[in-house]
Amino acid sequence: MTTTVSQVHSRLTALRQAMHSAGVDACLIPSADPHLSEYLPERWQGRAWLSGFTGSVGTLIVLKDWAGLWVDSRYWEQAASQLAGTGIELMKLVAVQQVGWVDWLAEHLADGNSIAVDGQVLSLGLTRLLEQKLLGTGIQLRADLDLLESIWPDRASLPQAPVYPHPEPYAVASRADRLAQVREAMKAAGADWLLISTVDDLAWVTGLRGADVDYNPVFVGHLLLGQERGLLFVAEGKVDQALLAALEDDDIAVEPYDAIAGALSSLPVDATLMYDPARVTGGIVGAVAEGVKRVEQIGPTTLLKSRKSAAEAAHIREAMAEDGAALCEFFAWLEEALARGESITELTIDEQITAARARRPNYICPSFATIAGFNANGALPHYRATQEAHSVIEGDGLLLIDSGGQYLGGTTDITRVVPVGETSAAQKRDVALVFKGMMALSRAQFPHGIKSPQLDAIARAPLWAEGIDYGHGTGHGVGYFLNVHEGPQVISYHAQPAPQTTMLPGMITSIEPGIYRPGKWGVRIENLVMNQDLGELEFGSYLAFETLTLCPIDTRCMDLGLLQEDEKSWLNTYHALVRERLLPKVSGSARDWLVRRTEPV
Amino acid sequence: MTTTVSQVHSRLTALRQAMHSAGVDACLIPSADPHLSEYLPERWQGRAWLSGFTGSVGTLIVLKDWAGLWVDSRYWEQAASQLAGTGIELMKLVAVQQVGWVDWLAEHLADGNSIAVDGQVLSLGLTRLLEQKLLGTGIQLRADLDLLESIWPDRASLPQAPVYPHPEPYAVASRADRLAQVREAMKAAGADWLLISTVDDLAWVTGLRGADVDYNPVFVGHLLLGQERGLLFVAEGKVDQALLAALEDDDIAVEPYDAIAGALSSLPVDATLMYDPARVTGGIVGAVAEGVKRVEQIGPTTLLKSRKSAAEAAHIREAMAEDGAALCEFFAWLEEALARGESITELTIDEQITAARARRPNYICPSFATIAGFNANGALPHYRATQEAHSVIEGDGLLLIDSGGQYLGGTTDITRVVPVGETSAAQKRDVALVFKGMMALSRAQFPHGIKSPQLDAIARAPLWAEGIDYGHGTGHGVGYFLNVHEGPQVISYHAQPAPQTTMLPGMITSIEPGIYRPGKWGVRIENLVMNQDLGELEFGSYLAFETLTLCPIDTRCMDLGLLQEDEKSWLNTYHALVRERLLPKVSGSARDWLVRRTEPV
Repeated sequence: MTTTVSQVHSRLTALRQAMHSAGVDACLIPSADPHLSEYLPERWQGRAWLSGFTGSVGTLIVLKDWAGLWVDSRYWEQAASQLAGTGIELMKLVAVQQVGWVDWLAEHLADGNSIAVDGQVLSLGLTRLLEQKLLGTGIQLRADLDLLESIWPDRASLPQAPVYPHPEPYAVASRADRLAQVREAMKAAGADWLLISTVDDLAWVTGLRGADVDYNPVFVGHLLLGQERGLLFVAEGKVDQALLAALEDDDIAVEPYDAIAGALSSLPVDATLMYDPARVTGGIVGAVAEGVKRVEQIGPTTLLKSRKSAAEAAHIREAMAEDGAALCEFFAWLEEALARGESITELTIDEQITAARARRPNYICPSFATIAGFNANGALPHYRATQEAHSVIEGDGLLLIDSGGQYLGGTTDITRVVPVGETSAAQKRDVALVFKGMMALSRAQFPHGIKSPQLDAIARAPLWAEGIDYGHGTGHGVGYFLNVHEGPQVISYHAQPAPQTTMLPGMITSIEPGIYRPGKWGVRIENLVMNQDLGELEFGSYLAFETLTLCPIDTRCMDLGLLQEDEKSWLNTYHALVRERLLPKVSGSARDWLVRRTEPV
Repeated sequence: MTTTVSQVHSRLTALRQAMHSAGVDACLIPSADPHLSEYLPERWQGRAWLSGFTGSVGTLIVLKDWAGLWVDSRYWEQAASQLAGTGIELMKLVAVQQVGWVDWLAEHLADGNSIAVDGQVLSLGLTRLLEQKLLGTGIQLRADLDLLESIWPDRASLPQAPVYPHPEPYAVASRADRLAQVREAMKAAGADWLLISTVDDLAWVTGLRGADVDYNPVFVGHLLLGQERGLLFVAEGKVDQALLAALEDDDIAVEPYDAIAGALSSLPVDATLMYDPARVTGGIVGAVAEGVKRVEQIGPTTLLKSRKSAAEAAHIREAMAEDGAALCEFFAWLEEALARGESITELTIDEQITAARARRPNYICPSFATIAGFNANGALPHYRATQEAHSVIEGDGLLLIDSGGQYLGGTTDITRVVPVGETSAAQKRDVALVFKGMMALSRAQFPHGIKSPQLDAIARAPLWAEGIDYGHGTGHGVGYFLNVHEGPQVISYHAQPAPQTTMLPGMITSIEPGIYRPGKWGVRIENLVMNQDLGELEFGSYLAFETLTLCPIDTRCMDLGLLQEDEKSWLNTYHALVRERLLPKVSGSARDWLVRRTEPV
């Protein structure tokens, strides 16, 4: 979606007319939908439509005579370029998650002013924060005004992709089992009803999947779950008769998407409603009937979903092997094509890697947009090559490829760095240091009770020792044929070690340290690992990581002289496993490549 | 202090009579003084006097017909033994810092009951927690009742040791400089007055020292510091005329110890008073005049004190060398005495190590009670040998010695483990693993902004990898000729990475991982390290640890085969430094021992 400067001007003019008609002085447009999703259906990409800025996160504020867009440092450069000429001021946030625009509104508006926002897409947390900051200022928040609706003539409707059951044998627990688990947690919390608005939680608890957004196999909807029955709110036409009947067997009735507000407002006044305050919007919760008691805590589905069962783990291991085999084919092709002198661009990489995955059984789609960054582009952790701007893979350097697939039996996410032509001593050192960090954490064990943020220093220590750090987290949770980014665990020293970040058996997390040298090259090595229970040892019960990802780590661009004996030994053991597991799945040049790249060092 | 069972019975009877006269149903006796000190002057050891339990922490509750003592797991065994026959029930707290007795009081007393406590010795935090828990229960808290006063006939008075100035050149900043720094922080916080009740903060800001408790060179008192003048509240007779005059030069007036309440109650109503809510008691704060505005935040002295200056660091390095030389003499004596077959007990160790330190210049006293634990006693992290119960060092095994000294130019704290006779392969493995953990963190670098608890996993990872953990923190802050335990930084995954735990240049912290095998042996290796600023590197500004402690780590009881090459290299570099720095300070058998124990491996 490219927006011209004159389009931005006319859209802002239209918005300001709507603000004038509504009698408001400011309009706030967050980057969110009613489900607080990572990937927004087009209908809720109003901030991008208005401003022309296409990054994933940004908050737009429009006044009568001024407009500004708040973005974090990942997007400063992109936003500066896309906002040029629009008159929208770039407002720099130093850290991801910062909400400097909240204070800005309180400070720059005056007593008697009012702010319009679509409360349906403003998280409950931000709604409350904003209300608190405006308290006593005389500034009014009108959270019931979706001004986009009247000025966006071709605004997309709700996504229409069909909802389908996660098929057996990959759906290893029945819907009835999951509902029973969730209802038990509701009882323990004293709740009669549970509101689920987030699409990954919704997909997990219903055992259903969809294709409403890119990369995540989810569908847009809400669930209001009672102890006896449930109400599933989705756009009409998405659930077919067979599925309607199957849901009815589990006492789940399908209702129109917009009926959620009515259902919440007609909850019995003696009911107790539970929801996760971090995973609902202020507008949705605002519909709840007065008098209904609230239990605000992390939702039971978030923790249940994070802990993959033994049966799921078996499917995941198989998906990982298929994914690794696809990568063998891809990397074998890449080496040959480079040797033949073919013209390969970062876009070709994306096409080829996706094609290799698509040849594998049970593959559905990429799990996120492939990052293929050559040299300087690899130094941008969130780089994405486009038709307009991408590099040709030629000359010498490092090629960083971060990609993943959705399979019916699991979600993958892997980063590897491979050499192109000659690699320098400095590049090989960086690859070795990143490998050391990845390995240090991969082989870590830790007692039950340890919280994921507390493990971060183990991966970073080898890099810190050389005065190097990276600006992103070391690891994120990963779903099971679901979102490639899911909580509650996160390995990052920027995260608080909150109770819900406690590491539990079955959680899958990425380990992906990196080094980024702006304008030069980037290195990141990423495997997925699963928490395995080691049971009761002499000093208590322990967890260890099982490395799930199966793909050689290219040692041609690594300074092996920097590895200690135990580190070489870990690498050789990993490569022996990769070879053993992938050999049955590859042939020809892919097989030769696998053998070549898993030789012991 | 040994208390007999019949003494406990008669003291409890007296207390119950006093409770009856005062019309209260429960009496709460915490382990604290008005200064929340680690070591309590005898006057405030009422819990030990009443119950006979001599551990450092424990909370006693006495009802009309029941009494219980809450202690954490460090003291379960000792408390069970000391409470036997007293009728006082042992109430087990699973974790240090737990306050299960607060809930207990709220649940076990009834509407109309009342609880007596001396609010002067109950921290503000606990006072508020208790008040909150009792809210709506109808249970009354009478925090103005020190029932001990009437039933403890020979209760000690305030400690009488003289207050003296920390002498030059060791006091490297003048009192005026420190007061100016603190007043600047007060201004920044909008405070006219600052209340300091904790004795280490008091000693630091006044540049004074004392001998009112064991091990910490502090004096009991409060300071009420204004922008123009200060009031120092200490028991009469502790400050001589010369010091009175010197304090007067800095506009500090000395007032009687008990006058603090009157001074707080007569603060002007338009004043703003600052104090650290974690470092005052409810009783003291309760005296503050109504209407006075409060600024509750971490006190400026806590952070200022934690950051040692370059001049202080120079004195500390010298003190560490003297301490190391004393240890060379001690360990040389120990090896020879064992070889001669002398009868050595854990108590002899304490005497000899203290005597060796006492021969060194500027030595004042031990910085804590020496822990000398042979084999099974070494497995008790808080073991202390007594006349009644101690082991003879004979046969085979490991001897753990944790000791430290107060010097005018610094405070030391060191743990070493040495072999006696033969050591087993399992013991040597444990020593190697603990060394690996100690070394891993000692050589760590990390970016500015990292919080001390986030570093804990680096020290623990080598132990966790073998399914081993230890129940105590990895490191505590250390003062400068002040408390051997000081904040705000602490290296422990049990601690929250709060803002004040951010690592800053000049902070001194211990690194002391351990392995404790109950009934068998214990291993702990401890060095002190200082945060050194590495300045701006390519990826930001970094800190590294400078190891301050200078003493060989005995490799005879270490499985060197478990060390990687880089770990051996670290050990050899450390031992080369120890040899270079200590050789000029030792002679004879101590010198021979130093050379022998610093040979490269």
